[in-house]
Amino acid sequence: MAQGLSPATIKRLARQTRQAARAILEEAGQAPGEPLPLAPVDLAAGLAPFIDHTLLKPEASAGQIAQLCEEARELGFATVCVNSGRVPLAAELLQGSGVKVCAVTGFPLGAGLAGAKAREAQLALAAGAGEIDMVLNVGALKDCDLGALLADVGAVVAVCHEGAAPCKVILETALLTDEEKIIACVVSQLAGADYVKTSTGFNGGGATVEDIALMRRVVGPTMGVKASGGVRTREDALAMIRAGATRIGASAGVAIVRGERGQGAY
Amino acid sequence: MAQGLSPATIKRLARQTRQAARAILEEAGQAPGEPLPLAPVDLAAGLAPFIDHTLLKPEASAGQIAQLCEEARELGFATVCVNSGRVPLAAELLQGSGVKVCAVTGFPLGAGLAGAKAREAQLALAAGAGEIDMVLNVGALKDCDLGALLADVGAVVAVCHEGAAPCKVILETALLTDEEKIIACVVSQLAGADYVKTSTGFNGGGATVEDIALMRRVVGPTMGVKASGGVRTREDALAMIRAGATRIGASAGVAIVRGERGQGAY
Repeated sequence: MAQGLSPATIKRLARQTRQAARAILEEAGQAPGEPLPLAPVDLAAGLAPFIDHTLLKPEASAGQIAQLCEEARELGFATVCVNSGRVPLAAELLQGSGVKVCAVTGFPLGAGLAGAKAREAQLALAAGAGEIDMVLNVGALKDCDLGALLADVGAVVAVCHEGAAPCKVILETALLTDEEKIIACVVSQLAGADYVKTSTGFNGGGATVEDIALMRRVVGPTMGVKASGGVRTREDALAMIRAGATRIGASAGVAIVRGERGQGAY
Repeated sequence: MAQGLSPATIKRLARQTRQAARAILEEAGQAPGEPLPLAPVDLAAGLAPFIDHTLLKPEASAGQIAQLCEEARELGFATVCVNSGRVPLAAELLQGSGVKVCAVTGFPLGAGLAGAKAREAQLALAAGAGEIDMVLNVGALKDCDLGALLADVGAVVAVCHEGAAPCKVILETALLTDEEKIIACVVSQLAGADYVKTSTGFNGGGATVEDIALMRRVVGPTMGVKASGGVRTREDALAMIRAGATRIGASAGVAIVRGERGQGAY
């Protein structure tokens, strides 16, 4: 960890955040959320089931999305991860494949109104998405506004769980101090999110082994942790999984499973 | 212009796009949209009334937004331009000031579902925004899908005009060929948008004098044109206005009106 927080400090910060967030939920008459059961992952099946095969560039064409889906189907990736506007196409192309469509929402700034993020998630699910990756409101985190953070994540989680779809919360770790990463993990967990995820790949800096280890330590053994941003090789992916990741977001999924060096920027 | 299209080529491309887009609207039983009347701008009042004072970084704190609003009120900028999640705060701070709140939607990728962008605009207007800057669906433009482009812009324009709020369409010129810029201008105009705007500032490259001149040539004399991304000095701003811009988006608004060199990245 950049700031080298001790295990005792991590524990204390997580406990304090948990207490403060629980008090806010209680005052609002809400119980903490419950994540969906996490599908087991096992390296015996190789790396493919760990991978969200990702293409989020705004200028990606329909042809490029089709290629992404074709690769995901062939290699058996967990999902393709696309912008919500590409969900209808991807869902159509992946019908019957077992590969889910993961849509991002509030992406990549996370600075929109909570209701707008929730609506985007709802429309994406209606269009065929099976997982949602939302971006946390980083500004609210900088303001230490736990109430706003809980409401923001909670609004999207509610929509996702209504559709039995897991909700991942992107923390955008590159913009956060270690203290803020801890707060973000605790809030996401209490709001019922299914995964915490490191990065969008659009705001400078991606996943690090240290951040994955910190996030895993804070959320405990059962919540999902997704490493994304800069994961380009089989070795990168394995290091993240060893540190606690249960999902890998990458544009270099093909290179990762084939043991080559990926070119992807994400 | 990067590719040096001749005036005759520009005219031909615009005409062809207009014909094709009109045919799509006609088949859908829709008339082309009408922009709102454009408020007159006049350099006699200085540069301030041209400026959308902009802070879109996801990690911007409430304190930084408050400072933005304070500067806009003091200097008489046209608007503050913020992420939709910051509209409630900015609208409260700017009450009675004459400075409007401009909210971005689908920002900065423009790759979300049209319904999600429209919903974000609607929520932002309900929260106090008076202008909306939406990002065009660049992928649909790369696919030459005029129908999707018209529906995307049209959905947001409809919501905006219901609230008597101008709608600006960000083309993200850095990702486009000159032909695509022309198509984007024509589609935005036919969908009833009030401005075309160059850039988000998040996807590499900002406004150029050549792009402003091209956009002005395509949309004619009465539609708004907004230059954004990399406008940092009074000279930059004046060059854009001379080329045809009627609005300037900048994080360096204070430096621009004071004739200093701004540091802002936007």
